[in-house]
Parts: sequence; C-alpha cells; structure tokens
Amino acid sequence: MDHNGRDDDRKKEDKKEEENGLSVERVFENQEVPSWRNQLTLRAFVVSFVLSILFSFIVMKLNLTTGIIPSLNVSAGLLGFFFTKTWTKFLESSGHLKQPFTRQENTVIQTCVVASSGIAFSGGFGSYLFGMSEAVAKQSTEHTDAFKNPSLSWMIGFLFVVSFLGLFSVVPLRKVMIVDFKLTYPSGTATAHLINSFHTPAGAKLAKKQVKVLGKFFSFSFLWGVFQWFYTAGDGCGFASFPSLGLKAYENSFFFDFSATYVGVGMICPYIINVSVLLGGILSWGLMWPLIDTKKGDWYPADLKASSLHGLQGYKVFIAIALILGDGLYNFFKVLSRTLAALFFQLRVRNATSNLPIADRSSPESSKISYDEQQRTRLFLKDQIPTWFSIAGYVAIAAISSATLPHIFHELKWYYILVIYIFAPALAFCNAYGCGLTDWSLASTYGKLAIFVIGAWAGASHGGVLAGLAACGVMMNIVSTASDLSQDFKTGYLTLSSPRSMFVSQLIGTAMGCIISPSVFWLFFKAFKDLGTTGSRYPAPYATVYRNMAILGVEGFSALPKNCLYLCYGFFGAAILINLIKDALDKKWARFIPNPMAMAIPFYIGSYFAIDMCLGSLILFIWEKIDKVKADAFGPAVASGLICGDGIWTLPSSILALAGVKPPICMKFLSRGTNSKVDAFLRS
Amino acid sequence: MDHNGRDDDRKKEDKKEEENGLSVERVFENQEVPSWRNQLTLRAFVVSFVLSILFSFIVMKLNLTTGIIPSLNVSAGLLGFFFTKTWTKFLESSGHLKQPFTRQENTVIQTCVVASSGIAFSGGFGSYLFGMSEAVAKQSTEHTDAFKNPSLSWMIGFLFVVSFLGLFSVVPLRKVMIVDFKLTYPSGTATAHLINSFHTPAGAKLAKKQVKVLGKFFSFSFLWGVFQWFYTAGDGCGFASFPSLGLKAYENSFFFDFSATYVGVGMICPYIINVSVLLGGILSWGLMWPLIDTKKGDWYPADLKASSLHGLQGYKVFIAIALILGDGLYNFFKVLSRTLAALFFQLRVRNATSNLPIADRSSPESSKISYDEQQRTRLFLKDQIPTWFSIAGYVAIAAISSATLPHIFHELKWYYILVIYIFAPALAFCNAYGCGLTDWSLASTYGKLAIFVIGAWAGASHGGVLAGLAACGVMMNIVSTASDLSQDFKTGYLTLSSPRSMFVSQLIGTAMGCIISPSVFWLFFKAFKDLGTTGSRYPAPYATVYRNMAILGVEGFSALPKNCLYLCYGFFGAAILINLIKDALDKKWARFIPNPMAMAIPFYIGSYFAIDMCLGSLILFIWEKIDKVKADAFGPAVASGLICGDGIWTLPSSILALAGVKPPICMKFLSRGTNSKVDAFLRS
Repeated sequence: MDHNGRDDDRKKEDKKEEENGLSVERVFENQEVPSWRNQLTLRAFVVSFVLSILFSFIVMKLNLTTGIIPSLNVSAGLLGFFFTKTWTKFLESSGHLKQPFTRQENTVIQTCVVASSGIAFSGGFGSYLFGMSEAVAKQSTEHTDAFKNPSLSWMIGFLFVVSFLGLFSVVPLRKVMIVDFKLTYPSGTATAHLINSFHTPAGAKLAKKQVKVLGKFFSFSFLWGVFQWFYTAGDGCGFASFPSLGLKAYENSFFFDFSATYVGVGMICPYIINVSVLLGGILSWGLMWPLIDTKKGDWYPADLKASSLHGLQGYKVFIAIALILGDGLYNFFKVLSRTLAALFFQLRVRNATSNLPIADRSSPESSKISYDEQQRTRLFLKDQIPTWFSIAGYVAIAAISSATLPHIFHELKWYYILVIYIFAPALAFCNAYGCGLTDWSLASTYGKLAIFVIGAWAGASHGGVLAGLAACGVMMNIVSTASDLSQDFKTGYLTLSSPRSMFVSQLIGTAMGCIISPSVFWLFFKAFKDLGTTGSRYPAPYATVYRNMAILGVEGFSALPKNCLYLCYGFFGAAILINLIKDALDKKWARFIPNPMAMAIPFYIGSYFAIDMCLGSLILFIWEKIDKVKADAFGPAVASGLICGDGIWTLPSSILALAGVKPPICMKFLSRGTNSKVDAFLRS
Repeated sequence: MDHNGRDDDRKKEDKKEEENGLSVERVFENQEVPSWRNQLTLRAFVVSFVLSILFSFIVMKLNLTTGIIPSLNVSAGLLGFFFTKTWTKFLESSGHLKQPFTRQENTVIQTCVVASSGIAFSGGFGSYLFGMSEAVAKQSTEHTDAFKNPSLSWMIGFLFVVSFLGLFSVVPLRKVMIVDFKLTYPSGTATAHLINSFHTPAGAKLAKKQVKVLGKFFSFSFLWGVFQWFYTAGDGCGFASFPSLGLKAYENSFFFDFSATYVGVGMICPYIINVSVLLGGILSWGLMWPLIDTKKGDWYPADLKASSLHGLQGYKVFIAIALILGDGLYNFFKVLSRTLAALFFQLRVRNATSNLPIADRSSPESSKISYDEQQRTRLFLKDQIPTWFSIAGYVAIAAISSATLPHIFHELKWYYILVIYIFAPALAFCNAYGCGLTDWSLASTYGKLAIFVIGAWAGASHGGVLAGLAACGVMMNIVSTASDLSQDFKTGYLTLSSPRSMFVSQLIGTAMGCIISPSVFWLFFKAFKDLGTTGSRYPAPYATVYRNMAILGVEGFSALPKNCLYLCYGFFGAAILINLIKDALDKKWARFIPNPMAMAIPFYIGSYFAIDMCLGSLILFIWEKIDKVKADAFGPAVASGLICGDGIWTLPSSILALAGVKPPICMKFLSRGTNSKVDAFLRS
C-alpha cells in the first residue's frame, strides 16, 4: 500500500510543468552545480538523521496500526528544506556560512530520508519480521511453536546483510532507465519538481507558508495526541474507543477513533482509496461478519477463542489474503507484461533507429533534445560509477549474506538464499522498471511470492513458515530498495544532482535505516506489551496476514474453516475481475472502480480507520470546493502536519509507557444499563 | 447581569455613526414611512412569535444554568430581518406581496421579541419565582416549609397582572426622555443602527452574510448538542463532566464543559466580564473554598449535608450575596445620583434657555437641529398616545393586580402591593432614565430592595420569605419593562417608527411572553427532575441566592455559619471599593478593574462556565488579532449562532426527557484506580 499517494503526486507534477513553462534549467542557469563531494555535506546528513527518526516513527506507527502508508515524500521534502534553510540562514546571519544551500543538497537529504524510512517499511516490522514473533504466532492455532522473537541484534544484522543488495543491482542500469528509456518515475519527478520549485524565490515563499501551515497542524496534532493520552488509563478507555456512531456500530468496528494520523492519511490518499476502504469495511463488518456469525456452531465450532483462525477470525484473515493476492497477482502480471512489452519494443526500436525515448513516444518534438535535457544528461553522465564496482559489491554482499543469514534463521538454508540472489537482480530490475512506468512498487508482491515458493520448498517439517517469512524479507528488501534508488536517480537527474552523490546518500540512508528502524520498533515492542494482538492499539494486521500466508504456503488449504475456501476463491476472482473492469473501462469511469487491496485492509482490523480516512477525504473535498487553489497548495501540508504530529507523539508516549508512567484518567463508554450497575457498585 | 453586552454595542454604535456619515435619513428619503397601523403587520407578529419561543428557550436555559444573560438584541435583529425578508422574498416571487418589508416593521418585530423574551428574565424563573419552589426551599435549612411550587396557571396569571404596569408608567414620559432629554439609550441606538443598516443595499448584503455565518454556527451548535446528548445516560456522564484539566481540577469545578452556549456568551461579553468571572472562580474555588474546607469541624460541623447552608455551602451563597449586594447598591446610588443631578440640571437649563439636550452638551453644533433630527422628531410626535389613556391603564391594572395578587400569594397582603404601586412609577422612571444614561438596567437591584423591605415588613411569622420574593417579582417586572420600552422608543425614534406601533408591539410582545415564558419554564420543570439542585445540569444559582436574600431579610444574620458574616462584610466592602477604584481611575486603567457582580457568579455554581467564556473570549481575541474587520462583522453572528443552536436544542432535549427517552451511552470519567476496580467488577 505504499503507492497510494502517487496518483496525487502525478497530478501535481503535470500542473507544475505547466507553471514552470518550458525550461526549468534556464532559471537555474546562473547557479553553479557543486561537485558530487560538495553535494554530500555534513549538515545534510544531520538533518537527514533527525528526519529519518521522525519518519521512522510515523511509518512504524502506520505499520503497526493499519499498514496503510501514504507517500511522505512531500513532507520529507518540505521539512528537509525547512530545517536546512533555517540552519543556513542561522549560519549566514552569524557569518559562518561556507556553502550555500543548493537543490542538489536538498535532493541528497530527500534521498537519504526516503532510503532510511523505507527500511521501516521494507524491514517488515509490521509484516514478515513481526509475523515471526511469538505474540503473532500464539494467536493462530497452527505452527504456534515456530516463532522467532524480535531482538535488536539480529534485526540490525539481518537488515545490514540484505538491504544493500538492491542498490548494487540497479546502479549499472541507471543510464538505461533514466537517459535511454526516459522512464517517468512519477513520484521521483514530482519530488524533483518540488525541490526545484523550493529553490526559486517564489517557490521558497510558498514553501515557507506551507511549512507554517504544516507546523500549525503538527502542533495541533501533537497536542491532541498528548490530550488524548490522559484519558487512556485502561483497556477500552479514551477517544480511540469513542462510540461516536452508537454502541451497536462500535461493536461492529464502525466509529471515529479521533486519530489525527488517519484523517491526514485520508487527505493524502486519493478519494477512491478512501472510498474503497470504507466499502470494504461495510462489506465485511457491516455485512459478511455478522452473517457468518449467525452460522456459528454450523460453519465453525461455537466454543472457539475469538482469535482462533478456525473460527470467524479465519474468515477475516483468509478472505483478506485472497483479495490481496488476487489484486497483487493481477498487477504483477500486468506490470510484468507491460515491462516486457516495453523492453521488447525499446530494444527493437533502438536497433532500428536511434534512442527515441518510449515515455515520450507520443510527442513529435521529443527527438529534438531540449536545453534542459542536454544539461541534465550531461551532468548525469559526468560522474560515473564503474560497473565492476557494482557487480563486485553485489557479489561480495551476496556472499556475506548467504553465509550469515542461515545463522540468523536456521530454517533458511544457504541454497535458498543463493537461488534468491540469482533471480533477485532480474526481479529488482523488473520492479524498478515497472515502478518507472506505473509508479507502482510491487515489492510486497515479490515478497509474497517468496513466501509461497520458499515456504513450499522448505515444507512444514523443516520450519517452512519461518523460512518463508525470512525469504520474503530478503526478497522485499532487494526489490524495494531497487525501485527507491531508481526514483532517486530520476529526482537527481531532474535536479542536476550527481548519481554518485545519490548513491552515497542512499548507502548512508540505508545504513541509518538499518539502525534507526529496528531501534524504533524495539521501543514500540518493549513499550506496548500487547503489540500485535487483535483489537489492541497496535494490532499490526499485516503481521498476522503474512504469517498466515506462510502457513497457507506450507500447509495448503487444510487450515481453513468450512466454506472459507469457496469465499476465498470468490474474492480472489473478484479482485481480478475488478481490476479487469477497471482496465477495460474508459478512464472517466475507471476512477470510480474501487481498489481491491484497499478494500481488504478493514476486513481484518475493522472499519474505524476508514471513517477517519473518509473524514479526511471529506475535509479535502469541501476545501477543494471552496478554494481549489488553496486546497491544492496547503492540503498536503495540513495532512503532513496531522500525520507527523501524531506520529512523533508516539515517541514520548512509548517512553512514558517504558518508564511505567500511566495516564491518570479513564474515559469509559458504558451502555445505560451497565452504567447504572457500575454506579450502584461505586456507591456501595 | 443583563447589561453585559451593552458595552460592546456602544462601541459598535460609535463606529456605525462614523460609517454612515452625517445623515442617515437622507438615504431613506425616498422611502415612504407607513402609517402606524401598517407598521403592525400580521407577518411581523408571526415572526415575532417564532423568535420569542426561540429566545425564551435560550434565556430560560441561561437563567437556569448560570444566570448570565448576554444581550441578544443583535441575534434578534438579524433573525427577524432574515425571516421576514425570506417571507417577503417568497411572496414577491409568487406575486402576492402586498406590502414591502420596511425598517419600521423590522423595529416592530425587534420590540415584540425583546418584550416577550424579556419576560423570561424578569419573570424570575431563574430567580425569585423559582426561589419559592420546594426544590430550592428544601436545600436550605431555614423556612423549608415556606414554599409555593410553580404551576402553569398561577404563573401566567401573575405575569399578566404585573407585566403591563411598567409600560403604562413610562408612556407619558417618552417625549421628555427621547426628544427633550435626548437620552442615549446605547442598546436601543445600536439596534436602530443595525436595523437602518439592514435596509440599505450594502447593509442587506452584509446581513445576508452574517445570517449565513449565524446559520452555520447555529447548525454546528445544535448538532453538537444532539451529539453530546447521546453520551449522558447517567449522572456525571457526558461532555459536561469532562475533566479536561485533570481530575483534581475537576473536583474544584475547573474544567471545560464543552458548552457551545457559554463559549458564545464569552464571545459577546466584554473581555473584562470574562476575566472577572474567571478571577472570581479562581479566588473562590481555587483558594477560599479549599481553605474553608480545612476548617471543617471548627468553623462548621463536619457531619452536615453538602447542601446545608450551615456548612461550606453557606459561605458560598452568602459571600456571593454580599458581593452582589455591594456592587448593586453602589451602582444603585451611583445611577440614582447621576439621574437626580442630570434631572436637576436639565430642568434648570430648560427653564433658563431652550431645550438644549444634555446628552449632547459637549458638542457645540447640537443646538442646530439637523435634517435627521427634524424628520425623527416630526414622526415621533405625529402619533400621540393620550396621557389620560396611560394613567387610566395604569390605575386599572394596578387595581386588578392588587385584588388578584393576594389570592395568588396569600403572604402578600394588598397593602404591600398598594405601597409598591404608589412608588413604582417613580422607580420605573428612575430606571428608564438611568438606563438611558448608562445602559444599565437596575431592575434586579430594585427587586432585591423589595425583597428586604417587604420581607422585613411581613416578618418571619407571616411568611416574609414568600412575601419578599413575590414583592421582588412585582417590582422587577415594572421597572424592567419600563426600561425596555424606553429603549424601544429610542429605537423607534431612530427608525422613524411610530411610538404607537412600538407601544402596541410591546403590549403584544409582553402578552406573548406572559404565556410563552411560563410554558417554556414548565417544560424544563417537568422534564428535568433535578432542576435547581446544586451540581445538577440546571442548578438555577440565582434561585438559591434570591431565596437566601429573602431569608436574610426576614431572619437577619442568624442563619450564617461561623466567621461567614465577617467574610460577607469584607466582600461587601470590597465590592464597593472595587467600584470606587474603577470610577476614580482614568478610563485607560479602569477597564482593567474586574466587575464584582461577575466575580460573584462562580462563587456559588463553580468555575467551569468561566473556562467556557474565557475560551470564547480567547477565540474572539485571536480572531481580532488576525482580522479585526471580519471579527467585528461576524463575531456577534458566530456567538449568536452558538448560543441559539445550543439553546434551541433544549426544546427537543426536554421533550425527549418528558417522553422518557433516555440517552443510550454514558461517557464516564474514572481515575485509574477506580477504573481497574470497575473493570474487575464488570468482568465478574
């Protein structure tokens, strides 16, 4: 779900291009481009480090609550600009400024932060990695003894040996993808436009205003988090348990949980994603689960624990998996076929004529190389990274990795790893290429593929569950970082940043992420004892989903309760059908077709966050109706403020929990009947 | 406390005069002034009736919660204009409009609504009248058997026989006060400017915008009331019990109770009133009561009921009374002396020269009669009300009243009434005159005077408590309606409305009020069983205060607990001292001196509403800092919307209570310790 924000970005990009007129680089003509070493400043990495911690907290919180992670590029760009600008302004006024703040440096920060906080997602703290833990394992009835609890040391070690492979696998191909194929990379392009605009005088002014708005909503959201905290003295206390639509709706998970984060997420995600989530919630919690509940005793035993996968919980988890897999598989084949077709076309055309870029096939004048393009290509090709370096790097890390990983996961044999590493560069290229075309990173789909393949290969008796989850991690890290770095190369290309500085920044960012992310997760893990438990504050829904996929891969369909398999088939087919309809329809109508993956999320964790997100959508919608220009300029800043403020509050809140400081008050919601009983009890 | 809004109005008035330039009537030159009969349209009274019900609910709610009633003139003016304009627009478009909507008609509506909703205040439903009831009587320990429970029949009868006297007593003096003395009547003048401005094209446009804002906040406030209702299934449930500043502060009545009404009231009241209220709250609940509480067992017996006047409650009530009386008495003598001095000056000057107006003494060119003045005086003097008519009316009603009142209140002998009625016209004139000078209606002070005089005369054995309260009612109704009608005459003078139509409108409005107000009170009384109980949703603080004043008048100081009398002396003196300082200081500094009467209110009912009001102040303050023009134009509309929406929700809410429909959920606030006990109880 890490692609939701990008549709929006794409729209923005189109607009920016119009505004900026034809040549961006003419505007920057008089600015000297610093050498790649000078683009990598110490201050950039200090700012990146601070922002990495901020965004790791936010991504971790999102991981562990719903798993929906919107694009945080805009906030990272804004905040990076703001911090460094403040820094340089301060130095300038005190006369100590040696080097002015350039857009190349800004791109370095952006790249470093994205690389670092990307690990918080691809590290699987909300999915495969946490899915190995005892807390998640004991909620299911199968393979409860196959678990590996998180520990700071092995998590950091694991991330270090798998996270750099993706970088080395795409580095040799950067010229092909950026200069020759001219892939669009919508997110990377949007980020580049943002950074370019910041460094023009008008852009800096707007950015300042946006930062002010962001700061305002950041404070509000943070203070709101602080205020809420005081009323959460026990389970089911506080605003997160507010039955705002009535007690009956609350029991079926329909309520507004006052989460500033998800209101912000709703403002960033496209309308159709929010509507899909709500639709999925209504379909599942409003319709299917109550209906299946009436079959209790018939379809499944009535005396099961609520968390047993042989009961209602099983339907919830597996139907969600079916939808996710159906959607993932469809998009996998779609992107793969487009990738192959485009590659085939590209190579044929290249042989036949010259290097006519495919992304610009439609425009007749694209063969004339513009000033911007000349400048960008010249600078992009100036600093080379030797191919032998990247190949040697890949082989070396792969060797270290194959040697160490079996020591971390005993179930993951060295030959599984070797097989993965042989196929990985191809898959990494596929993902980077597909992402360049569609902006859709399929990292988690490749990861799921690894779960099933390695899980089935290892088999149940040899700890296939853990092997599958670990293999998922290896795969996901490679393909995810590959597509991230490609996006960054595009951003660098458009901001005249050197590929070398991009690469180094990504290396440093990844290294930061390998330490920050596990530490942040560790804080959550230690502070909140019920992490990963259904119905708790941090249910980590995808941890359960990933683990059950692994069980499914190992065991086949024997784990499913009655009729669940048929329902799964139905929803798997429905996911493919919905995608087919969407692609078949005219673009005008296709945007009204819901997204099956978004629909699947509330199936398991409930609809409450759908209410939050739809509220965010509604606010943005009304705002756009009232003042479109302002909403477009400040909507993302408001949303980022809401997300960041609430996200960063989780830092003090988890420290408070670790220190044993408990909130003083419980805001409790009781039905009238229960309340009079409680009043009688309290009087006695 | 019915004068708080007027300082603001006065400021507005000054500004309006500047804006409108020198001549208002030139603008309206081409508009024909309808005859007085045509000013009194059926539609005006239908609209007035609807608005009267609305405002009666609002005033009643304010009466019964804190007794702070801001000036609702602006909202009445806005809504009256809006309703009638909509009505005439609708008729116009369907071609049935016979008579256009004029400012005279608007004034008629305004007058009628003010007269009608004035009864909700002067009827004493939150003070003397409800102070007679058993519910209030049984909370004290003295004279608990001297009560008279409310009943629809006697309340309506009582109001009818006392409410018209004030009107007849000032009618003959209207020319003296308006044309000869040229008294300012700030509220009446402000209302006239508002109405005049509405009927210019630009004013109508602004009014439309204001109505839109009012409507928006009305809806918000109403829906917020509805939402809150769902969570109030039991005592201490819901947002009104939200310990937003912590449990310790909540116990000392410091919390934000989420009341849209009082946030709105805070926005209308001058800053110093809000600050005074908060100051009073901090002084009493933050300092004095906790200190006195430590003397439990020493100053007063430790085993008393919380509501006993011999305990802490006694200090709260009597210290509040001391402050109120000190402030009231000071202002009484101040206004009286100014009245007498001005009258004396006026009569001497009149005899010496011509009719030089005192209010405009300072301006040299005021002796030249302007076009506006000519027009206004001409029309004001055109329609006469014969003096014999008003004297006959007064005598007739006084006779009926003296005959019937002793049947309603057996304790109130006919000769008490006769004495009151002999002095009443003079006091009514004093009040009307003082109000014209200072905008300060001293109705409640005259009422308190009656309590002490008649109470002491009747004595304890002859039911002096009830006699005092009833006499207070008679007195308050006369002097209050007298000042109201004078304000209306001023409004009429400035809008070229006929005094006759003003008088008829006031008669009809008063008659409406005599029926609507008791009915609204009756609804509250029947719907909320704990009306008038300390700590409940409707504590009706002034009912207790008035009753205890009557007890004090009858019994002397024997009812007071230890040291209470000295504290009372201290606060009585402090109230006078504060006023002296305020009057002695330069105007620049005087506005920072708190208002003793406002300080006294939280003494008895707690500080929570002070938090609401200060929040309202804060919102307005920030708004004014950001955009002064907008805040001035729309602040009163926002405040009115908040007050009206929440106020009108009390209608359906009391109907729900009457029908026995109870809210489904209790939002409860428990300390962590209590919460774990409750959780254990609920699990068992």
